[in-house]
Amino acid sequence: MQKEKVCSKKKCFSPEVIKRLSLYLRDLKNLQEQEVEVISSDEITKMLDISSAQFRKDLSYFGEFGKRGVGYEVSFLIRELEKILGIYRWWDIALVGVGRLGSALLGFSGFPQFKLRITAAFDNDRKKIGKAISGVEVKSLEEMPAVIKKGGIEIGMICVPPQFAQSIAERMVGAGIKSILNFAPVSIKLPAEGIYIANVDMACELQTLVYFLNRRH
Amino acid sequence: MQKEKVCSKKKCFSPEVIKRLSLYLRDLKNLQEQEVEVISSDEITKMLDISSAQFRKDLSYFGEFGKRGVGYEVSFLIRELEKILGIYRWWDIALVGVGRLGSALLGFSGFPQFKLRITAAFDNDRKKIGKAISGVEVKSLEEMPAVIKKGGIEIGMICVPPQFAQSIAERMVGAGIKSILNFAPVSIKLPAEGIYIANVDMACELQTLVYFLNRRH
Repeated sequence: MQKEKVCSKKKCFSPEVIKRLSLYLRDLKNLQEQEVEVISSDEITKMLDISSAQFRKDLSYFGEFGKRGVGYEVSFLIRELEKILGIYRWWDIALVGVGRLGSALLGFSGFPQFKLRITAAFDNDRKKIGKAISGVEVKSLEEMPAVIKKGGIEIGMICVPPQFAQSIAERMVGAGIKSILNFAPVSIKLPAEGIYIANVDMACELQTLVYFLNRRH
Repeated sequence: MQKEKVCSKKKCFSPEVIKRLSLYLRDLKNLQEQEVEVISSDEITKMLDISSAQFRKDLSYFGEFGKRGVGYEVSFLIRELEKILGIYRWWDIALVGVGRLGSALLGFSGFPQFKLRITAAFDNDRKKIGKAISGVEVKSLEEMPAVIKKGGIEIGMICVPPQFAQSIAERMVGAGIKSILNFAPVSIKLPAEGIYIANVDMACELQTLVYFLNRRH
C-alpha cells in the first residue's frame, strides 16, 4: 500500500494529489488536440467533474498557475504539470506475468503520452517465452535480473497470481527495481526502505461504487 | 472522476477511505484462511504496510472495532467491514468492450470474495458476439439496454477505446446503470445527478510511482 503522505517543497499531501494531477494533464492534452488555448477555472473543473476548490488546492501545493479573471493557458499548464510529474524523460517498465491482464497492459495505448513504456516482459510459461506481444519479447523469469540491471529499469509491474506476487516483488527489488505497480490482489511487504508500491485491485476500485450504491438503496 | 468527499453518519471522508477498507478486508480474509483469530493493531498495520494512525482513523469514521490491549478479532472485523462496504448481497456488473483488458476482467479471480460478478458483456465486433469468455456470453451493443433493464444491473464497466467511452456511458445510464468503473483513458461527463464514476487509468497510477522516483534522482 502507498504511504499516506508525500511532501513537496511547499507542503505534505496525499499521493492521490499526484494521481489527480495526472488526470488533469491527460485531459488538458485532449483539449490541446482540440486546439483550445485558454481555459477558465469553471470550464476546467466542469470538464474534470471535480470542484474548483479541489483543483486549485491540488495545484497550490506546487505554485501559482492561473491568472485571475483570465484562466489557465493550456500549453503552459501542461508544461508545468509535466515538470511536477517528472515527464521529461522516458521511463522503462519491466512487466512480470503475461496472462490476460499482462497482455492487455502490454498493448495499453495510454502509456506513451506520459513517456512510459514497457520494455521487458517475463513469464515462466514456456509456451509464451520467445513470443512477442505488442512488440515486446517475452523472456523467462531467470533472465529478469540481468535484463533489469542492464536496462537500468526502475519500475516493475506485477500481473502474476496472488501466491507468487511477494516472491516476484522481492526478486524485482533485488535486481534494482525501485517502484512497483501491483495488480495481484494481495498486499506485498518489502523490507527495503524507499521502495514505492502502488496497488491496483479491480475489486477494491469497484467497492467504492458499491458503497455509494448501497447508500442509495 | 470521483467526488472528493463522501459522508457517513459520523463524518465526511475521502472515497480513498472506502478503497483502503476494501484492502483491509481483503487482507483480513487472507489471514482468516490462515486461521488467525486475533490480530494486534501493530501486526495489522505491518501486514498492510500502513501507519496505525491511518488504520485507526479509517475505521473511526464508522465506529469502535478493537479492544484496547487485546487487538482486533479477525472474524468480527471482517463482518463489520462487510457491513460498512455493503457486501451482504451479490452485485451484478455489465461490461462493455471485450478486448484484451475486458477479457482479463471477465476472468479476474478477485471479484467473488466481494460478491461482485460480471454477468453481461457487450461488444460491437461480430467475431466476438455469441462467444463465451470465462462463462459470460458476449452480446451485441444493441442488446445492452434490454439486458441491463431485465437484470436490474446497476454497475457498468467501460473497457472501450477512449473515443467511444462517453457515448457508451450515456447509453449505460439511459438503461439504468447507477455507477461506472471507467478504464478508458478519458474523463466521462454525465448530466445525470447521483451517478458515480470511478476511473482506473493505468498511466495515472504509474505516474505516482514516477513522481516518487523522480524525487530520488
